[in-house]
Amino acid sequence: MVATLEQLAALVRGRLFGDGSVPIQGARPVGEARPGDITFIENERYAKLLRTSPASAAIVGPHFQRSVSGPELPVIEVDDPISAFLAVRSHLDLPRKPRWTGIHPQAYVAATAKIGPGVAIHPFAYIGDGAEIGDDSTIYPGAVIGEGCKLGRAVVIRPNAVLYDGVTLGDRVEIHSGTVIGSDGFGFRQVDGRHVKVPQTGRVDVGDDVEIGANCAIDRATFDVTSIGAGSKIDNLVMIGHNNRIGRHNLLCAQVGVAGSCTTGDHVVLAGQAGIKDHTEIGDRVLVGAQAGVIKNIAAGAQVWGTPALASRDHHRLHTLITRLPELYKQIKVLSAQVSRLSVGGQAVAKTEE
Amino acid sequence: MVATLEQLAALVRGRLFGDGSVPIQGARPVGEARPGDITFIENERYAKLLRTSPASAAIVGPHFQRSVSGPELPVIEVDDPISAFLAVRSHLDLPRKPRWTGIHPQAYVAATAKIGPGVAIHPFAYIGDGAEIGDDSTIYPGAVIGEGCKLGRAVVIRPNAVLYDGVTLGDRVEIHSGTVIGSDGFGFRQVDGRHVKVPQTGRVDVGDDVEIGANCAIDRATFDVTSIGAGSKIDNLVMIGHNNRIGRHNLLCAQVGVAGSCTTGDHVVLAGQAGIKDHTEIGDRVLVGAQAGVIKNIAAGAQVWGTPALASRDHHRLHTLITRLPELYKQIKVLSAQVSRLSVGGQAVAKTEE
Amino acid sequence: MVATLEQLAALVRGRLFGDGSVPIQGARPVGEARPGDITFIENERYAKLLRTSPASAAIVGPHFQRSVSGPELPVIEVDDPISAFLAVRSHLDLPRKPRWTGIHPQAYVAATAKIGPGVAIHPFAYIGDGAEIGDDSTIYPGAVIGEGCKLGRAVVIRPNAVLYDGVTLGDRVEIHSGTVIGSDGFGFRQVDGRHVKVPQTGRVDVGDDVEIGANCAIDRATFDVTSIGAGSKIDNLVMIGHNNRIGRHNLLCAQVGVAGSCTTGDHVVLAGQAGIKDHTEIGDRVLVGAQAGVIKNIAAGAQVWGTPALASRDHHRLHTLITRLPELYKQIKVLSAQVSRLSVGGQAVAKTEE
Repeated sequence: MVATLEQLAALVRGRLFGDGSVPIQGARPVGEARPGDITFIENERYAKLLRTSPASAAIVGPHFQRSVSGPELPVIEVDDPISAFLAVRSHLDLPRKPRWTGIHPQAYVAATAKIGPGVAIHPFAYIGDGAEIGDDSTIYPGAVIGEGCKLGRAVVIRPNAVLYDGVTLGDRVEIHSGTVIGSDGFGFRQVDGRHVKVPQTGRVDVGDDVEIGANCAIDRATFDVTSIGAGSKIDNLVMIGHNNRIGRHNLLCAQVGVAGSCTTGDHVVLAGQAGIKDHTEIGDRVLVGAQAGVIKNIAAGAQVWGTPALASRDHHRLHTLITRLPELYKQIKVLSAQVSRLSVGGQAVAKTEE
Repeated sequence: MVATLEQLAALVRGRLFGDGSVPIQGARPVGEARPGDITFIENERYAKLLRTSPASAAIVGPHFQRSVSGPELPVIEVDDPISAFLAVRSHLDLPRKPRWTGIHPQAYVAATAKIGPGVAIHPFAYIGDGAEIGDDSTIYPGAVIGEGCKLGRAVVIRPNAVLYDGVTLGDRVEIHSGTVIGSDGFGFRQVDGRHVKVPQTGRVDVGDDVEIGANCAIDRATFDVTSIGAGSKIDNLVMIGHNNRIGRHNLLCAQVGVAGSCTTGDHVVLAGQAGIKDHTEIGDRVLVGAQAGVIKNIAAGAQVWGTPALASRDHHRLHTLITRLPELYKQIKVLSAQVSRLSVGGQAVAKTEE
Repeated sequence: MVATLEQLAALVRGRLFGDGSVPIQGARPVGEARPGDITFIENERYAKLLRTSPASAAIVGPHFQRSVSGPELPVIEVDDPISAFLAVRSHLDLPRKPRWTGIHPQAYVAATAKIGPGVAIHPFAYIGDGAEIGDDSTIYPGAVIGEGCKLGRAVVIRPNAVLYDGVTLGDRVEIHSGTVIGSDGFGFRQVDGRHVKVPQTGRVDVGDDVEIGANCAIDRATFDVTSIGAGSKIDNLVMIGHNNRIGRHNLLCAQVGVAGSCTTGDHVVLAGQAGIKDHTEIGDRVLVGAQAGVIKNIAAGAQVWGTPALASRDHHRLHTLITRLPELYKQIKVLSAQVSRLSVGGQAVAKTEE
């Protein structure tokens, strides 16, 4: 649809500067905006891009200076340009390239699978026995959906991602390429010097609106369930071991590893390359710093850093003291020399006293 | 087959409590056991699950209290419930869903490949020229077996795993999804500021009973062989560079990285996210702690932690001293003040002596 | 073609020892060389392999002792055996197994894709709408090339690698199995406690002669471009986030993670498992040590280690002081005792003065 800039300003409760009668047909990021589009500028670093953009209008933040973009460009000023942009985009409901749907003849779909309306199953995708694919979902080329998997509505499985048997995904879940969900947990028992596998017979449940990046590995539970709470977002190359229960609205950054049987609360952030020991409980709103190694439970709201991970203040204090070690060693040397002299002096005093 | 509880107790040399005449048809973990099944309880944390389980009997450890499960449930008490459970399961030889075998018409099998009896080759699996697939092996959808690969008996290649040309796998090897074996090692020579590739013409040999998790990368050797010893188990997202020789019955946890040309002995454990420098030799039964960085050889039996990795005792000692730095700095401050006063006093003394 | 050893010695400006009239047909590493081949020995460790090799000649370094190989083997001595070997190999232009070309009937190629001459598209490979595959490129089984991707000449895409839509690869690029290029960057905005996705609409450009190992993940830019400079080499399981600009002739070792919006200069080396914070600028010829955590910009030519990464000298100095902490604590204890005694003595002195 088309809206005037004034209508869009009202929609996002923004302040309009310039001609409100400009018609807007589309919303695109500044690098790809065309005439008739509205775009947005996240921060001042990108403001100069507006000079050369053919966009017809822009959504900007409160510190935006119109002189930077050329004052003739009409703008809507809001506190949070990206959110406003997304709202506008959603409102305009951009006509996109019509999405192909259907089951491609070069795909494999088991006779017992249930495929909802509006689903696209691309070449070389594999849908196993009894799997259920919810309405409007897309299974890209080479993706494998194991037996008995249940996918919600509008799920997107990118090329060559793999779901083992019995994985459940909520609505609007997106799984990026190469990610493997439901592989066997790493559970062995030593018997006579050999590692005997503990059967991994549990499952994986992924909540609504979860997005999982490329080449992650999420293991099925030993007995019950490995779960990812609704709204959580997982970056690339992340490892989630068996029996973990990841809370809602978590952010797990790239290359994080969570060993088995951990729990995280809601709104937890694990920064890049952090590792969590098995059987650890992490409270709500915890932030674990990059490369940290967490080896014990963390109370809600805490921020931890380092290996082994310490509360932010303790970690930074120790780190400061470590960087001051060179001067400490010097100070000790001076002190030592002073004490030596005093000891000699003291003995001298002591002697004079005798 | 069916066995009485008494027969099973004898099989595992356990102590029987309750009715030994109960017939047992199956062995399943507590979460999925049905009437007629025997289940097991690994430790007391799970004991209460028995109250609501329809299982007909359970294998338990020596500290199990029958009052927890309800005293009417017959149990077999053993020292190691999981091992006993696995023995029972194997004895009962559960009738499973019959396994599909054959070459699916949507697979690709080169005319020169040799496929043993009882093999399953699923849709979109690719078997290259001259490859040999041993009896009763399963090649899941989208898996790629390169030219001249040799797979032993009862090998399992999960969906979308890839073997480059010339990889050899022993009997009962299992390779999980997304794992790549035989990719080129990272070998380059600087020539006039450019990195010129050193041809990686070696191979990869994987021993019997090895299991390799999801999304690992195991490089082929430059000239001879990268090898994984029999019985070793490798978790997800593990990197094994070219020319490494991993010993037998190793455990390599998730996200471990082993640079090129290392060797590990037998029964080595590398905990999660540990890294091993190239050309490092690690002896038998070594344990490398999580996130450790190993930069020199480690003698058999040692346990090492930290970066650079130190013997367990040294590492923990240093770590304790580091956490005591705040009090050390305070102590130095006090000491310094005392010495200052003494110096002044000493000078005073010295002066009075004059 | 065939050349005499004398001709090859002249080609690489080496010193010839032995019979220069020996005809050479091929160049192969020592483990696979046959009669009529020339091979090479990188260093003395491998010299003894020549005794049992059927090779007709060898290229060796300046410290090679002919007695080790058996003095009858003619050799060419050069400063850099591998470079000379590669030059000879290229000169001989070995007849290889003829490469299959064509589009396999079990592949999928969109009607609008442009496929150059000499291209091989293997079974289960997928080529999307409008993609362009340059001359003599090879797309291995299960690889996925998204819509509008542009691949240069002689590109190699290994099995099950994935390019999302709109990825550009230069000439002679090689992408190993399982690697994903162009997946969405990890960009979210918190809105009312939920993570709302920032659309990732940018692209990925990979320069000429880049090689990327197995199971890497390289995200597309938010708006403009994630780029990998010409000649750079990337090992396995490496994460490159959105908006990064990797320079030319870089080496990124296994399991490195580069968060978003970083830049690296030319000839940068990031050793294994190192992590780079987002928005970091790394100058030309920087070396980042294994497992280091870089959290601020690094000037050209610097070498850094540790977390947070410090200049080499500072890092090693601190590390040395940390390992000396046990003796420091002892020294303080002794010093403390001395000062106590002196204080008592001082008080005694003070008292005697009263």
